[in-house]
Amino acid sequence: MDIGFIGLGEMGGAIAGNALKAGHTVRVWNRSRDRTKALADQGATVVDTPEQAFAGDAAFSMLADDSALRSVLIDGGLLKHAPKGLVHVNMATISAALAGELAELHAQHGVAYVAAPVLGRPDVAAAGKLNILAAGADDAIERVQPIFDAIGQKTWRVGREPQHANVLKLAANFMLASAIETFGEAAALVSGHGIETQSFLDIITNTLFPGPVYQGYGKMIAERRYEPALFKARLGLKDVRLALAAAEAVDTPLPIGSLLRDSLIDAIAHGGGDKDFAVLGEVAVRRAGR
Amino acid sequence: MDIGFIGLGEMGGAIAGNALKAGHTVRVWNRSRDRTKALADQGATVVDTPEQAFAGDAAFSMLADDSALRSVLIDGGLLKHAPKGLVHVNMATISAALAGELAELHAQHGVAYVAAPVLGRPDVAAAGKLNILAAGADDAIERVQPIFDAIGQKTWRVGREPQHANVLKLAANFMLASAIETFGEAAALVSGHGIETQSFLDIITNTLFPGPVYQGYGKMIAERRYEPALFKARLGLKDVRLALAAAEAVDTPLPIGSLLRDSLIDAIAHGGGDKDFAVLGEVAVRRAGR
Amino acid sequence: MDIGFIGLGEMGGAIAGNALKAGHTVRVWNRSRDRTKALADQGATVVDTPEQAFAGDAAFSMLADDSALRSVLIDGGLLKHAPKGLVHVNMATISAALAGELAELHAQHGVAYVAAPVLGRPDVAAAGKLNILAAGADDAIERVQPIFDAIGQKTWRVGREPQHANVLKLAANFMLASAIETFGEAAALVSGHGIETQSFLDIITNTLFPGPVYQGYGKMIAERRYEPALFKARLGLKDVRLALAAAEAVDTPLPIGSLLRDSLIDAIAHGGGDKDFAVLGEVAVRRAGR
Amino acid sequence: MDIGFIGLGEMGGAIAGNALKAGHTVRVWNRSRDRTKALADQGATVVDTPEQAFAGDAAFSMLADDSALRSVLIDGGLLKHAPKGLVHVNMATISAALAGELAELHAQHGVAYVAAPVLGRPDVAAAGKLNILAAGADDAIERVQPIFDAIGQKTWRVGREPQHANVLKLAANFMLASAIETFGEAAALVSGHGIETQSFLDIITNTLFPGPVYQGYGKMIAERRYEPALFKARLGLKDVRLALAAAEAVDTPLPIGSLLRDSLIDAIAHGGGDKDFAVLGEVAVRRAGR
Repeated sequence: MDIGFIGLGEMGGAIAGNALKAGHTVRVWNRSRDRTKALADQGATVVDTPEQAFAGDAAFSMLADDSALRSVLIDGGLLKHAPKGLVHVNMATISAALAGELAELHAQHGVAYVAAPVLGRPDVAAAGKLNILAAGADDAIERVQPIFDAIGQKTWRVGREPQHANVLKLAANFMLASAIETFGEAAALVSGHGIETQSFLDIITNTLFPGPVYQGYGKMIAERRYEPALFKARLGLKDVRLALAAAEAVDTPLPIGSLLRDSLIDAIAHGGGDKDFAVLGEVAVRRAGR
Repeated sequence: MDIGFIGLGEMGGAIAGNALKAGHTVRVWNRSRDRTKALADQGATVVDTPEQAFAGDAAFSMLADDSALRSVLIDGGLLKHAPKGLVHVNMATISAALAGELAELHAQHGVAYVAAPVLGRPDVAAAGKLNILAAGADDAIERVQPIFDAIGQKTWRVGREPQHANVLKLAANFMLASAIETFGEAAALVSGHGIETQSFLDIITNTLFPGPVYQGYGKMIAERRYEPALFKARLGLKDVRLALAAAEAVDTPLPIGSLLRDSLIDAIAHGGGDKDFAVLGEVAVRRAGR
Repeated sequence: MDIGFIGLGEMGGAIAGNALKAGHTVRVWNRSRDRTKALADQGATVVDTPEQAFAGDAAFSMLADDSALRSVLIDGGLLKHAPKGLVHVNMATISAALAGELAELHAQHGVAYVAAPVLGRPDVAAAGKLNILAAGADDAIERVQPIFDAIGQKTWRVGREPQHANVLKLAANFMLASAIETFGEAAALVSGHGIETQSFLDIITNTLFPGPVYQGYGKMIAERRYEPALFKARLGLKDVRLALAAAEAVDTPLPIGSLLRDSLIDAIAHGGGDKDFAVLGEVAVRRAGR
Repeated sequence: MDIGFIGLGEMGGAIAGNALKAGHTVRVWNRSRDRTKALADQGATVVDTPEQAFAGDAAFSMLADDSALRSVLIDGGLLKHAPKGLVHVNMATISAALAGELAELHAQHGVAYVAAPVLGRPDVAAAGKLNILAAGADDAIERVQPIFDAIGQKTWRVGREPQHANVLKLAANFMLASAIETFGEAAALVSGHGIETQSFLDIITNTLFPGPVYQGYGKMIAERRYEPALFKARLGLKDVRLALAAAEAVDTPLPIGSLLRDSLIDAIAHGGGDKDFAVLGEVAVRRAGR
């Protein structure tokens, strides 16, 4: 396929790289040009404007947040000048509110729109093992499936309403944050009684709670080592905030979400914003004066 | 081996049954005699007093709570009259405070003491697939290992301090309760946006959160069906309360635990005390007016 | 003085009316013209555009929220075309973020800016008994003091940074919300034990907690009567949300604020958005299944 | 009157002293005899056993907690040997559960029972200005009213069920704790924006929140000075715990109470257990990394 790719952060860069590896033609654009170099080395065509990337069979975007996306896509007039028949695949984790707004705007401008946020951190993206939550018109998803196959291990079709994919992504990240906070609190409890956190972690990951989340974040908490960050606490707070807003939009209290927000602000206030999400474990022991 | 077994509730009955199946001699006692019949049919000797069960190579107990254990073991004078060299294996989920007290009392009376709370509900107990968290003197554990092998899939040796096993069990159940509440809140979020809870459950259990906890409790929440109860909300509240107390004993706040306690009281206030622990999912949607 | 007044909701209308009663000349503007009639009857001059109100000695604004203020003041170009030497007094409860932005914008456009949010509901405004939290340049405040004297019982000078007045207002409303939730929970506790809530209210308002907040909101909770609303739960949620954002801006967790937000969403989910703020008391008893 | 007085802590000592000053005959007993000296100097008769104090027209008790009261009153057999017609006035803050149990026990032993917990710290007790929450049979209260008049500014008759007085006291202390936490959080918010906490305190105590609670505890928070303690955080936690238990007994969630419990444990974990209750303000700024 011939695709454009907008936004080459750690996630975007890894994804675009896998599309290239699979033999697709990729035009890349990024606000700060220095991030395009690595992709050019892998065979991408670097373009000067987002418009040039918003062309071909499909355009993928992976921008940092609502504000970056809004600025490039809406204020920058990208949508207005998009070629007929283009499919836009938005992989970023954005608010449910903007997701709904974008679905309408694309329809108005005759651009097919697929929301495709992903589960997985940069290392998973680099390995082409992402789980893709894709929502939008069936034929639009069909057309970009070859790219999804190149970058992920599985595409989860989650319906026709693009914003549903974003809500699901936020709900998943909310659960992730809660799992970290919960293990952090449990670790503070057992270590307070003189039990090794690692022993506790071994038991629960081999019984009730298998899987990468508890193993990965749990290990950082057991070792009290939060750098280098695989996913920064600051980004975690952003996602929790979006989950809270998505819940409020449907009049749904999310008490665990509220608690997570406070713990993350505490982490950031203590210099943990650029540390790993697992730094929630540090908040739990600090509350215990340890 | 020749063992006694005190307390034949759903868990105790299933465990004693597996000891019998493995060929051990089992003398059973239960406060209300009617529960002994099934065991007698399986070959157990029914005895009239706890003293008669508190004899042989080892005595196992699985009583409902601190108060039941205290009444039979301490007030009833069992410990005082225990035969020399007996190993007492206490499998109940009890408070960290009583656990510490029992460790001292057994030492005073020259009775070897092993705390061995288990992970797994009655169905797991019946299948002989429990995970056993065992703490106490090494030789005492060695002596009862044949029984552990008959009733569980794995024995986790968690040190010499009996109360450590109890703290670990409470921490694990705290994590379980949080996983249920968290999925319940996430389900309220996605269903509020018109997404099937079952779809969300499929995604997360196949990606971030594999394992029986999310699958089992998640299914009940997705189906909004909380009966028959595999583990009652009322018992869940008991365990959360014990986790909070164990944390407070080491000056450790447990904010998720506090939140769980309130949600469980809410569930009970709405008639859910004898429903499954998963009824926390119902509290989450009720908060959203649904 | 010769003033303009923009925004004639319940609060704005009552305030502008008191300025008229004190003999000042008042030009009024409101988005929907029907609200200007009552003021015209009291002697106000109704003008057709916000520009015509943004003139004279000073212009007062009392718009509903950030978005309304931003739309009229910034997007509408009011600031750009403001006459030299005008003092703008903004009485609305707005976000700390917008408050900071406005301080800068006014300075850029050479318009003196006073933030003057008020403590007191419409009935207090009508009685001219507001407490005014005023921040800005001293001479600007001096110039509008005659109006403050006409509409309030006291002007609290809270410094030169306009946004400080807004932060103080948000902190005060946060405390108000917490007092209501707290009394609601306490009432659920005592009524659960069969004690009249009114008796409890009598005791605490005559001992530890005198003053209008506990008396006023407490009475509504004791009577379980939340209509007519003196201050709507929906507006209460807006203010709590602004307090949380103001706290987050300075990396400060606000756990009570988070809890209040969830309770208010619960209230709104159950149809209480247009009921009085005191409806938090209903959330507390609903949690108890009553 | 001729009364006995059991328990001469700071509160008990001050109360017994005022009874003496009013001309009543007072026999005093305390577990550690050294605390009786001051009362002896004021004219009290020091007795050797609680039985000797549990005689005369009425016996007052002010013991530290459930356990002390249970030990002296029940285990010690005081009730069993109480003289016919004695009125026992229990002024301590005890659990609702023990309060209910005591009501029954006194009835069984034919001893009139009045629960009379008080609002006010030791300085208020010394000044004879306590607010007394009295519940029990009308004639029993009538008989001890002369003492109440000597030690308090007002007696609130709160019904015939003694435990109601205890529930009301716990609800009042719960509100007190919440007011402190709430002001602490609000102070962390305003000080984070560079506003003096004292200015904020002046405004709210002169407008929305008059009265001694906000003024007294607020001042300590504004000055960040928590010693000497007028009411220790450790005792505050005890009362919050009792309020949570009293609420749970009637299936009532108390989310603010749960939050207070965590904050108080945090305070204690950081060495604040013997500092004033206001140390909650320190927890709030610590969460913000300040």
